[in-house]
Amino acid sequence: MADPYAPAPVDTVSPVVPVLRWDEPPEGPVLILLDQTRLPGEEVERVCTDVPALVDAIRSLAVRGAPLLGIAGAYGVALAAARGFDVDDAAESLSRARPTAVNLAYGVRRALAAYRGALEAGGDVERGAAAALAAARLLHREDAESSARMAEAGLSLLDELLPGGNHRILTHCNTGALVSGGEGTAFAVALASHRAGRLRRLWVDETRPLLQGARLTAYEAARSGMPYTLLTDNAAGSLFAAGEVDAVLIGADRIAADGSVANKVGSYPLAVLARYHHVPFVVVAPTTTIDPETPDGASIEVEQRAGQEVTEFMTTPASGGAEPGPGVPVAPLGTQAYNPAFDVTPPELVTALVTEDGALSPVTGSGIADLCARSRQVTIG
Amino acid sequence: MADPYAPAPVDTVSPVVPVLRWDEPPEGPVLILLDQTRLPGEEVERVCTDVPALVDAIRSLAVRGAPLLGIAGAYGVALAAARGFDVDDAAESLSRARPTAVNLAYGVRRALAAYRGALEAGGDVERGAAAALAAARLLHREDAESSARMAEAGLSLLDELLPGGNHRILTHCNTGALVSGGEGTAFAVALASHRAGRLRRLWVDETRPLLQGARLTAYEAARSGMPYTLLTDNAAGSLFAAGEVDAVLIGADRIAADGSVANKVGSYPLAVLARYHHVPFVVVAPTTTIDPETPDGASIEVEQRAGQEVTEFMTTPASGGAEPGPGVPVAPLGTQAYNPAFDVTPPELVTALVTEDGALSPVTGSGIADLCARSRQVTIG
Repeated sequence: MADPYAPAPVDTVSPVVPVLRWDEPPEGPVLILLDQTRLPGEEVERVCTDVPALVDAIRSLAVRGAPLLGIAGAYGVALAAARGFDVDDAAESLSRARPTAVNLAYGVRRALAAYRGALEAGGDVERGAAAALAAARLLHREDAESSARMAEAGLSLLDELLPGGNHRILTHCNTGALVSGGEGTAFAVALASHRAGRLRRLWVDETRPLLQGARLTAYEAARSGMPYTLLTDNAAGSLFAAGEVDAVLIGADRIAADGSVANKVGSYPLAVLARYHHVPFVVVAPTTTIDPETPDGASIEVEQRAGQEVTEFMTTPASGGAEPGPGVPVAPLGTQAYNPAFDVTPPELVTALVTEDGALSPVTGSGIADLCARSRQVTIG
Repeated sequence: MADPYAPAPVDTVSPVVPVLRWDEPPEGPVLILLDQTRLPGEEVERVCTDVPALVDAIRSLAVRGAPLLGIAGAYGVALAAARGFDVDDAAESLSRARPTAVNLAYGVRRALAAYRGALEAGGDVERGAAAALAAARLLHREDAESSARMAEAGLSLLDELLPGGNHRILTHCNTGALVSGGEGTAFAVALASHRAGRLRRLWVDETRPLLQGARLTAYEAARSGMPYTLLTDNAAGSLFAAGEVDAVLIGADRIAADGSVANKVGSYPLAVLARYHHVPFVVVAPTTTIDPETPDGASIEVEQRAGQEVTEFMTTPASGGAEPGPGVPVAPLGTQAYNPAFDVTPPELVTALVTEDGALSPVTGSGIADLCARSRQVTIG
């Protein structure tokens, strides 16, 4: 490479379009999402007036990322309640929209509990809707605070692991403001390192097949003025071998009771590479990502997505168009593909788990249990 | 996945267009290449009337793959000689067209030696050209024979390592008939297993950024009626973890004297994963790929390619068009990318090296030296 440490030639304007917001125009309440499938080319909002529209946005990844899915799920319940739809049905279909991220079901459950609580306390449907919305807003706010605490705890951990500063951090998929009520999970830690003047380079895995790294993390890094370099997922091995990676930081979609981490496919190979090269492998996730009901990695249901995501290159919508452009076939017609959305990293490969309650290292079942016991958020669930 | 072992729904017609051929129309001799950048959508030939056109075809990967580059280089020298161009200049620019594949320089050297030998023996330029062409044709034939011997040796090794048959083989990049005078290297072994009724599944890494696995290996597997499944490079970790990979078979672009293997980027992470999961990692390459002048892995020059290959999705040419379509940006403008074409796997991670002279295991410097001493082809160089 010419000069991997050259400054990133980018502007430093922050995103102007909020990732997710509740609005109440005269026509009735709506949930408005930044359509992440259109980034980085266009910042387009998608307006959901009902839960099927939101489920579609979740399935098509217009809204995505474990913490944000929880917030979206909670607002979805509030939307159904406010619009007078069947709230139990809405909660059910939202919870099932994607199977792996536990936060989605968690957010739905919290808003639903608030709704039911209001009704049980003698309130009418309107009061129930208000309670669900308040619960969604609280979760939204909590998630933002949680981001800030994870960033702080993560930066302390980095300072401990890499006392010299000059962090060269490799990350996978997208874990910044686009997935969160705040600044995200793993990305928020890298951003804290950048703001503290200690980030030398953020290595951004492109993250096939949907290129969340190239499309979204690069967008967030550019917006934040961070020094970053994009790479294909399989080029990470060369970086490790060249000693160019000081730590790997990733998020999580579900953490089992034994500490196994389900995250975007490609995380597990990074964990194996990191172990082989004695590089810390750090998972950053709010405690809402922990699912005590899932005993271990083998019990985590991994979403299998359409092979078309691999056999075709999905173009972003034509400028002004509402629908994604047609896929460009890259493999022969009839090719079948294996396309798991996530993989599972066993706890023994995870150096530390950073949550809003601090860092857990080593990651063990009893450590996870202690964390859950301490965490108000998980016990509420 | 629905059923990863379902039969591949493909036809079994063999490629009708030869990968590379010499022709002598009335206008003068030409080298005709199957343009691999147009596959799998179209089988289009590219006619080279001079060495600059061939160098361009090599650089743009219209012709690619270590053994085939050697053959193309030799024919390139013959073309320059037959057309009356400066043969030394031609040899020089061909040798430098791509830096990592040692076979390219080897093929050029052989044809150049034949050309010079004819001149030194008192022949005229015409006789020199004939000698260069004969050398290219011999190399072409030798490579085909070499493929067949590697396939045989590789299948014997698989039978030894995996006595139960039912091979589930993972491969990376493209190593079949498209890279060779014969049926290729690693792919030829998988094909031999298929023909022997012992291939349960060929797992095909898509091989970012240029998708040689999705575009070319899937094409070859489909053409041969092999059971194959495509995956993103980073999904290989999940397959290993699920115990779905019995062996990894890859080719090589250069093998150093200590047994270090330079191959398509993404090979090294597979080697690390294979070691972690106790799965054999087998390199299949003709002895012409061994470069005794390169002492070790650190001495191998790794080609760095344009970041655009990562930041943009390269479309194939529109049907009927002659030039590749425009790239579709996938990352924000101004994003820089780290894009090494190859990585280096140290010998201790290679279970065996299969050449036309049999299998070497373990792979050591002294084993490589013995192999070179035995090999007629290397000593000729």
